[in-house]
Amino acid sequence: MKNLLSSAAISVLLATAAVAAEPVPAGLRDTAIELFKPLPSTIPSVKDNKITPEKIALGKALFFDPRISASGVFSCNSCHNVGTGGDDNLETSIGHGWQKGPRNSPTVFNAVFNVAQFWDGRAEDLKAQAKGPVQAGVEMANTPAAVTLTLKSMPDYVAWFKAAFPDEEDPVTFDNFARAIEAFEATLITPAPFDAFLNGDEDAMTVEAKQGLALFMDKGCASCHAGINVGGEGYYPFGLIEKPGADVLPENDKGRFAVTNTADDSYVFRAAPLRNIALTAPYFHSGKVWDLKQAVAVMGTAQLGEELQEEEVELIVAFLNSLTGKMPEISYPVLPAETADTPRPISIIPTSQ
Amino acid sequence: MKNLLSSAAISVLLATAAVAAEPVPAGLRDTAIELFKPLPSTIPSVKDNKITPEKIALGKALFFDPRISASGVFSCNSCHNVGTGGDDNLETSIGHGWQKGPRNSPTVFNAVFNVAQFWDGRAEDLKAQAKGPVQAGVEMANTPAAVTLTLKSMPDYVAWFKAAFPDEEDPVTFDNFARAIEAFEATLITPAPFDAFLNGDEDAMTVEAKQGLALFMDKGCASCHAGINVGGEGYYPFGLIEKPGADVLPENDKGRFAVTNTADDSYVFRAAPLRNIALTAPYFHSGKVWDLKQAVAVMGTAQLGEELQEEEVELIVAFLNSLTGKMPEISYPVLPAETADTPRPISIIPTSQ
Repeated sequence: MKNLLSSAAISVLLATAAVAAEPVPAGLRDTAIELFKPLPSTIPSVKDNKITPEKIALGKALFFDPRISASGVFSCNSCHNVGTGGDDNLETSIGHGWQKGPRNSPTVFNAVFNVAQFWDGRAEDLKAQAKGPVQAGVEMANTPAAVTLTLKSMPDYVAWFKAAFPDEEDPVTFDNFARAIEAFEATLITPAPFDAFLNGDEDAMTVEAKQGLALFMDKGCASCHAGINVGGEGYYPFGLIEKPGADVLPENDKGRFAVTNTADDSYVFRAAPLRNIALTAPYFHSGKVWDLKQAVAVMGTAQLGEELQEEEVELIVAFLNSLTGKMPEISYPVLPAETADTPRPISIIPTSQ
Repeated sequence: MKNLLSSAAISVLLATAAVAAEPVPAGLRDTAIELFKPLPSTIPSVKDNKITPEKIALGKALFFDPRISASGVFSCNSCHNVGTGGDDNLETSIGHGWQKGPRNSPTVFNAVFNVAQFWDGRAEDLKAQAKGPVQAGVEMANTPAAVTLTLKSMPDYVAWFKAAFPDEEDPVTFDNFARAIEAFEATLITPAPFDAFLNGDEDAMTVEAKQGLALFMDKGCASCHAGINVGGEGYYPFGLIEKPGADVLPENDKGRFAVTNTADDSYVFRAAPLRNIALTAPYFHSGKVWDLKQAVAVMGTAQLGEELQEEEVELIVAFLNSLTGKMPEISYPVLPAETADTPRPISIIPTSQ
């Protein structure tokens, strides 16, 4: 009788067997709560930057304002699109003069909880990060002086900066620009089924997602991807056990080595925070892997030295899907109108680049 | 004693004299209501496209989705930014491969009321317009087939199209894509102080704005810029009396001639709709004039054969400022996540261009 079973039926049996062989372990939540942390229900505080409604409102306007870029084409939201998981769904971002950036754009959602910003952690927080792309020649190609001039040229912005930084004589500065953006970004938090599970609702995740969580911890994924952002907390060599191919791990990008100039930091990157990972393909700093399953498999061989079975990959992906959160509601800001003093957009590409 | 007056004091006297010399004419509103029309309080109906909440919601998502462009970089909102007056504040838009478009991006606000779309009126309505930039090589550089494939690859989009076009077997089409965008754009209406004035609140406009309105009608501006959009209703030669310089009116862009192939239509353009004009510098199809006063002066010489006095220009600008409306509240849409079937972004520039 068994010999007559179709291959489809056998697949079903095998799948059932796989599920039966890996039930949801008792005490899963207790184990998980030691490694992970649910998102808070309130806006987190950030260092040296008291968050106020005025600062958030100003930061939102700045985040969406393309006039922050030299060309007038790109806003923060261009590469950290709040409608598409907080990133741009490109291998690497396209910026000023159609130049391609060197690394995949990370999501802005929950970024406030990362230990530091950028793939190599070179910015200690979001206010330091916000200054980077504005000045990068391949991104916004602008200067702090030009940004400040642009903002000061619009009376509404001047008033909003005064409201956001009421104790300052001359509040329209590049530092405060970055602080306001940080304040807005701190509100971009996406509670997910995984948070509900950690908070005690054991039914918030599917059986497969819970099995995937168990595997995620058992296999060692959580050694690097832990904490409130399921990653984003520390730095690890990409290719700890086995280096992936040069397409996924380009040889000329040595990651954190460029920050610390320490040989040990060659090809070291901040472990990717995995919240909303299902929304933010393509994956890795190179953006070369579009399929989440493939990304999980690459991690298995590169970091764990283990070829994960297809069923294991699928369960882990089920867990990762439980990290897709509820997006914050964001009303599109009405931005101040330019004046005669607003610097004109510059779309030409400097010859030095 | 008069000889001792400072020049500043003389300016004040002159300004007062100018104002006194042109009081607000009696019956101004009665005259205006014959030429202009206030915006409606409800969403206007459009031809062959019943507007429903489902269609508006779908259209909003499509309007903000950069995956409509081949590169994944540009959405409708890139050049018709709802945060900056419904346009992009560039001379001409920057598109695929950093190419510059040929004409200044018109505002999307109140565009539903224009007689036809584009500067040359080559699209009869917004649903026809919506198909243009998607396929233009210098804008989104995409194809209807690729757009449809992209949309069909995301189950949420398929469900949203089904909800928006419930009677159709296969609703995910390029035509319906355009219809949904038209439905959303029909909601982008910005009631202004001028509307309140037309509706009977004579105090809704400043004295200067009312004096400017009187001038606007007396001088003949309203011959072309009339109706609900204070323009956008008909086609007129740019340089009717005197051609402006080739910077403002480039020789190689013959306007509506390209649409009708009629000699009479050389350098003919749709009269610009003037709602929110204070927010949408730079001006004219060439986007070469950044100052609204200068634009009004250019119109005086080019269209009316009259060198307007500075005070007249200022009063007309005061009237134009009363056309700046209340922007609609728009919540940023959460867009569907890509799947394995979603076409990858293509950022290379075709060699044929």
